[in-house]
Amino acid sequence: MAHSKPDSDRIVFSVPGKQDQDWSAYVEDFRHSAHEAVDWIASYLADTRQYPVLPDRKPGALIDALPAQAPEHGEPFDAMLRDFQQQIIPAVTHWNHPGFLAYFGTTGSTPAILGEMLSAALNTNGLHWDTSPAVAELEHVALAWLRQWIGLPEEFFGIIYDTASTSSMHALIAAREMIAPEARQEGSSPNFTVYTSEQSHSSIEKGAIAIGLGHRNVRKIGTDSAFCMRADLLEEAIRRDLDAGKRPLCVVATFGTTSTTSIDPLAEIASIAETFDMWMHVDAAYGGAAAILPEYHQQFAAASRAHSVVVNAHKWLLTPIDCSAFYTRRPDVLRRALSLVPEYLRSSEDPRAIHLMDYGVPLGHRFRSLKLWFVLRYFGRDGVERILRSHIALARQFAAWIDGDSAWERVAPVPFSVVCFRFKGSDADNEEILNRVNAGGKVFLSHTKLNGRYVLRMAIGNLGTGLRDIEQAWHILKEAAAEID
Amino acid sequence: MAHSKPDSDRIVFSVPGKQDQDWSAYVEDFRHSAHEAVDWIASYLADTRQYPVLPDRKPGALIDALPAQAPEHGEPFDAMLRDFQQQIIPAVTHWNHPGFLAYFGTTGSTPAILGEMLSAALNTNGLHWDTSPAVAELEHVALAWLRQWIGLPEEFFGIIYDTASTSSMHALIAAREMIAPEARQEGSSPNFTVYTSEQSHSSIEKGAIAIGLGHRNVRKIGTDSAFCMRADLLEEAIRRDLDAGKRPLCVVATFGTTSTTSIDPLAEIASIAETFDMWMHVDAAYGGAAAILPEYHQQFAAASRAHSVVVNAHKWLLTPIDCSAFYTRRPDVLRRALSLVPEYLRSSEDPRAIHLMDYGVPLGHRFRSLKLWFVLRYFGRDGVERILRSHIALARQFAAWIDGDSAWERVAPVPFSVVCFRFKGSDADNEEILNRVNAGGKVFLSHTKLNGRYVLRMAIGNLGTGLRDIEQAWHILKEAAAEID
Repeated sequence: MAHSKPDSDRIVFSVPGKQDQDWSAYVEDFRHSAHEAVDWIASYLADTRQYPVLPDRKPGALIDALPAQAPEHGEPFDAMLRDFQQQIIPAVTHWNHPGFLAYFGTTGSTPAILGEMLSAALNTNGLHWDTSPAVAELEHVALAWLRQWIGLPEEFFGIIYDTASTSSMHALIAAREMIAPEARQEGSSPNFTVYTSEQSHSSIEKGAIAIGLGHRNVRKIGTDSAFCMRADLLEEAIRRDLDAGKRPLCVVATFGTTSTTSIDPLAEIASIAETFDMWMHVDAAYGGAAAILPEYHQQFAAASRAHSVVVNAHKWLLTPIDCSAFYTRRPDVLRRALSLVPEYLRSSEDPRAIHLMDYGVPLGHRFRSLKLWFVLRYFGRDGVERILRSHIALARQFAAWIDGDSAWERVAPVPFSVVCFRFKGSDADNEEILNRVNAGGKVFLSHTKLNGRYVLRMAIGNLGTGLRDIEQAWHILKEAAAEID
Repeated sequence: MAHSKPDSDRIVFSVPGKQDQDWSAYVEDFRHSAHEAVDWIASYLADTRQYPVLPDRKPGALIDALPAQAPEHGEPFDAMLRDFQQQIIPAVTHWNHPGFLAYFGTTGSTPAILGEMLSAALNTNGLHWDTSPAVAELEHVALAWLRQWIGLPEEFFGIIYDTASTSSMHALIAAREMIAPEARQEGSSPNFTVYTSEQSHSSIEKGAIAIGLGHRNVRKIGTDSAFCMRADLLEEAIRRDLDAGKRPLCVVATFGTTSTTSIDPLAEIASIAETFDMWMHVDAAYGGAAAILPEYHQQFAAASRAHSVVVNAHKWLLTPIDCSAFYTRRPDVLRRALSLVPEYLRSSEDPRAIHLMDYGVPLGHRFRSLKLWFVLRYFGRDGVERILRSHIALARQFAAWIDGDSAWERVAPVPFSVVCFRFKGSDADNEEILNRVNAGGKVFLSHTKLNGRYVLRMAIGNLGTGLRDIEQAWHILKEAAAEID
């Protein structure tokens, strides 16, 4: 077989459903089905409200409905697309639905979908610069654009990780490297401590556990009546730990906490971090998008004094998961913590060559910046600003309805687009209301606990969400309350 | 504005390039451009060889070519797609090119591209079961299918992470939890040790550093002449550490190392892990795909005795990055290490409800299983087997040419589809040959170091790679060698 004339267009498998075994049949099979998929996506986006937001499924139902074994022989695209619609879709929670008002509302916007299509087709992987200059450099460009919008100075280096959990874990790793550089060689010490508020996201604790700091070394600082971290208690806790011989590494402040979207006092916390020479990380996974708006600039300004900041484009910035933008003004420390270059990954030493693998645990690096670049270009700054402001206005409108109805109460300020509220009844009443509302399929809300009480949350962040969705939610909530009364 | 009739189809931004401000214009704008993108992708896949594999770009060139600021106003899709082709593509390293023979060859296959399109459009996020039953359950199904193909028993629980680096980091976290469960609360101890071979991937060391074990506590065990871990040296190292009061946590064996794709003696290593009560992790990121083939079953069999195994679908399994399949038969330990459920994430307590967030650092969970499910269905077991065997046959063919030419030498066995070889000259000669070959744009090979010498690698793993690509590579290599002689 050596040096035989290659049969250049032959493929070693048959195109499913056909007997064709050439490359062009493989490509044309895709072209045909991908056009169909585009039309399906367009009709899905055109009327997502036709689907219940939450699926009416029992755990295990989809597993039971699908074959227990993979097929021996290839199956045609038609069968896959049919099963996608008939089996998968009824088990999907529709995050792209205008009635999705749970957790944080998000959007898989059209330019981002286009970006993901192209990124999957290229399958280019930015381990280091040479393995894909486009991945390294477009990530730099798109993150620089976003950085300017949210007002962080140029010294902040940006990298995209999958989630805010991963971003915050990297912040903690960098914090340890800055304060205790011996840990990279020697291992962590049970003596290190980390500070964050009682209202901060669970990923801070999880990150601390994962990197070996220990759950008991995470100090959850108390908050004020508006659920914002109390700087005085933070300072007290740090002093107490220093007196006990502990080594404070990092304080994590939140710009938009998960339950109420409260804003920690960034400037005061930055001063404390500076006084005690600690790393400061700002979790702006949700709220960071609002920092684009001039009306939030002042509140976000002290984020520039932090060592790292995370903003999730896949939360309130129109980008489908995953796209977590992590910024640090100490990339040298992050790199010192995590860079390892084996011979098989040795590459360009040009100082302008960005090697993303040096700044994180994952070696492979997906071309996520393409979708973000498309989003920023398609909507432009004014489009993004209008969308964010419309969500904030809708939240304020809903808050006004709650405030104006004596059967309901609002339980937290509304700094962004999330409203925390409750029916003036028992916790069980509120849980029952939530279950009834969500079972209807028109809207999906989630809950939290504040001051020990069960609280409902409405989170607005989907591009399609309009006044009619909020009105409908309010109507359904009142109906459910009337039914249980 | 309260209770005003909602103008239901209005959007708050204009569709770029048009004055339309209604939802249907937004959707139709996508439909039109997505069809164009599909045609571009089809033409790209039809003739990827028209592009140079490696871009001819200087570091910083793309950054300099793109605007330094994001646009104030939205831009039409046409402009974005034009810039994608004119600016981005010339800076892309084409991993989906049949001439891509570097690192590990990969494929962004057509069913997977389709899966990514649909996944981005749904933007559904499987934090816990309720947030998307389809994400939790299709991941279970697709990973069970793959598990059966590679012969792991049913007790192995599967989850998809982004990369093998992340998968292996989770293995180390679980290992620590099993051996030293107090570490979750108290923090890591500099007393823990981890074992892997000199030939294992750098991500093992990086994971150990990240989770606070300390670089100096990673023992790199020597290998035999075929670059496989020496079990006798492993056992010696463990005994030495035990004598010194260390606590061995984990041994990481590799099924297909990065430089030479050598296979560590899994059964012997499993016996040692059992003797010393350690976690055993198998890094089969690349080689695991071959375990689908009956001819590899025996060599892979002892992976069933490991506590965890990683197989990257985005390496040799036709799936674009990212899709790293992680299996563990101790999901209880992984869960105990990392589960944290704040009130705002409390969800179904049905025992069949799989909450993926309990098994990892990232909270958000992308619908990656859709593309994998499509890949397994589209190619079927026999299609995948044929593709893998064709790559292995091409590698053997190339190895035979090297073996038959006295000016060249092969420097490692070829257990899979990677050939390590060198021109019988100096290291500088080989580096110069590689530079010349890669500058030509037809093929892209990478290098490594073995026994202190500079070695060239040819890695075959792209669906489109055929005999003509290997012949061409061989021809170009010989030409380059003749030029420098």
